Parts: sequence; C-alpha cells; structure tokens
Amino acid sequence: MAFSGPIEDRLAIRELMDIYADAVNQRDAELWGSTWAEGSSWKLPVIPGMENVAGKENIVAAWNAGMAMFPFIFMSISVGDIQVDGDTATARAYTTEVGITLDGTEIRPRGQYDDKLIKVDGEWLFIERIFNSLYGE
Amino acid sequence: MAFSGPIEDRLAIRELMDIYADAVNQRDAELWGSTWAEGSSWKLPVIPGMENVAGKENIVAAWNAGMAMFPFIFMSISVGDIQVDGDTATARAYTTEVGITLDGTEIRPRGQYDDKLIKVDGEWLFIERIFNSLYGE
Amino acid sequence: MAFSGPIEDRLAIRELMDIYADAVNQRDAELWGSTWAEGSSWKLPVIPGMENVAGKENIVAAWNAGMAMFPFIFMSISVGDIQVDGDTATARAYTTEVGITLDGTEIRPRGQYDDKLIKVDGEWLFIERIFNSLYGE
Repeated sequence: MAFSGPIEDRLAIRELMDIYADAVNQRDAELWGSTWAEGSSWKLPVIPGMENVAGKENIVAAWNAGMAMFPFIFMSISVGDIQVDGDTATARAYTTEVGITLDGTEIRPRGQYDDKLIKVDGEWLFIERIFNSLYGE
Repeated sequence: MAFSGPIEDRLAIRELMDIYADAVNQRDAELWGSTWAEGSSWKLPVIPGMENVAGKENIVAAWNAGMAMFPFIFMSISVGDIQVDGDTATARAYTTEVGITLDGTEIRPRGQYDDKLIKVDGEWLFIERIFNSLYGE
Repeated sequence: MAFSGPIEDRLAIRELMDIYADAVNQRDAELWGSTWAEGSSWKLPVIPGMENVAGKENIVAAWNAGMAMFPFIFMSISVGDIQVDGDTATARAYTTEVGITLDGTEIRPRGQYDDKLIKVDGEWLFIERIFNSLYGE
C-alpha cells in the first residue's frame, strides 16, 4: 500500500527514524530519548523483562543498559511503511546493525520495528515501538 | 545530476522503492505485486530464462518461484537517482540483501536496478526494472 | 534534534547524499565531482596527506587516486542529521561500504561524514566534508 498522509509528515517521520539511528551511532542518550513521547512503550518480546518497557524514563534507562553491552554498535535504518492519519501514524522500519559484544564477538543483526507515532506540538514522536529480531542475534 | 521533478513525485518514488523491499521482507506477494504496472517488464539478464519477464502476472509468479529458493531473505534499498518528467520517470536503486539458500548457505549480495516508472491514477508504479548483480552472488 | 528547514531543501540534501554514493557505485568521477562546491574541502584526518584536500579539482583527483585502490567498491549512505539555515546547512551522514582491495581482501567499513553545505543557484553542494572511520578499516 502506498504511503499516506501529507508529504511534510511522511518526510518528518522518515527523519525521526534517521535520528533514532543517529543517536545510537553517536551513543547520545538525550538525542535518542528525544524521539520518544511521554507515556510511550518500547516492546521487545524476545528479551525477557523487556516485553513492555513503559514510560520514557524507563525506556531511556533500558537503552543505556543495553548500549553498555556493546562497546561498538552501528545502526542504519530502512523505512518500510508510513501511514499518517491526522496527528497519529503507523510505520514499519528495519534495522541493520554491526555490533561488538563485551566478549569481542561481532554480530550483524537485522530487525523490524512496528511503530505507532503521535504528533505533539508539531513534532512526530514514537508512542510505541515493537521490535522483533529477523536475523543474526 | 540533481534529482528532478516535483518533490511529491520524488518522495513517492522513493517510497515505492521502500515498499518493494518491505514486501520482500514481509514475503508479501500481493504487496510486492502492487508496485508493478500492468504490462510491465522485469529484466534479469544474468538469470537464464528471466531476461525479460513480461506482464504483471508472470512477474509475480517469477518472484514467488525466486522467493521459494530463499528460506530467509532481507532486503534494504538505496536510491541512486530519480528523474521525473510528467507522468513518467527513470530511476536507479541499489539492493543490499542477506539471504539463506535452500542448502543453508548465507549470501550477502549487492545489486543495481535501472528503472522506468509511470504514474497511473496518481500512483507511481514500475513499468520496467532491469536488475544486475554487483557483488556476492 | 528534529531536522530543520524547508522540506524542499531537506529532500534535496538527502538526494545529494544519494548522488554521492551513486557516483561511487558508478565509478563516475564527473558525477561525484558535481556534488562539491568550488572552493570546498574534503577532510580525512585519519589518512596521512588527506587531512585537508582543498579545492574541487584536488578533491576529484584525490578521489580518483583512492578509487584506483579498490577494484570493487559499493557504498550506501544513511542520513543522520540535516539542519538548513537559508542557503547554508549542516548535516551528518553514515557510509556503509563493501570493497575489494588491490590484493583481493574484502573490507566492510562503516564511516561518518560531518558536512557543511551551501546552496548555489538553487542547487545544494558540499562545501566541507569531514570523514571519520567508525569500523572495519
């Protein structure tokens, strides 16, 4: 299905995904946190204890803990779908990563994000991201 | 050469390429088929018998046969060029894939698409895609 | 921080980055050179002698010399940030490459570009690109 919604919104959501990956690459918790709405949920069903990380503060804390497990991590994203309906949207994105774990192992995982977004004061933010691993981890 | 044409069209063609890869990742033949125009051609000169797969129905059938050879496949695309002229366009895109063949071998091919597109009822569709492998297969 | 500036400019800068990678993949020095402004600087602090390659002609010559070291090279880019202020802009981008060196070694580097851009006669061009390797070379 063709992407829907005003091009301003579709481009802004694409850019939000770019910022999310940029923040990983920069290891910038503040920047990464800025992509999430208050009251948002980060759902990682494959990771015990992270099935539903609720609230922006908890999400950023969980991310910091996760990042600490990777002395090096590089992420790029691919947009799969964006459907805008007024001030809400759904989206799908894919992650391509290269990482080094604490024991020095190189991993090259591929993952999928199914997203819900909201527009707050003119800015698009993630209100829910569900992550599933596709390959390599 | 700078990309040309209205930004609405350039963004919509970029998104069409995103949908093409999304459909591969979702293994969704209907979604994948929706990116092709009636009477389109999928040309894979490097694959005997697929030098010119003509007609949307044949293209989707060939894709289904191809996908059956890969228990796992992940595709991301990179846009190389988009030139819009009214309701027609040319484009170039690159494919980055990770795949597992039926015998369990992992491949990581890179490829190039040279494309012709048409706008039908306000929606951009591929009318011709010529694929060439660049690396890894 | 959200990307800033008119969407026409933000999309055009994204496309300029696409053209840069497309030119690498096509090994097209003229196309690659067309992304640089007169009087621009290509800064590669990690490569002795290339800390500050100044002037478009020198930049293209340095690129040709660099490309000669890779019988095969494939680049895709990821946008990290774009901030437009009138006819100037800053940006960050990431490079994902697969290359074969002269001795046949395969490398898969990741890199980061910190960019300054200017708009000349309606076209965005790089006036400064600072490259740093992140991984794999």
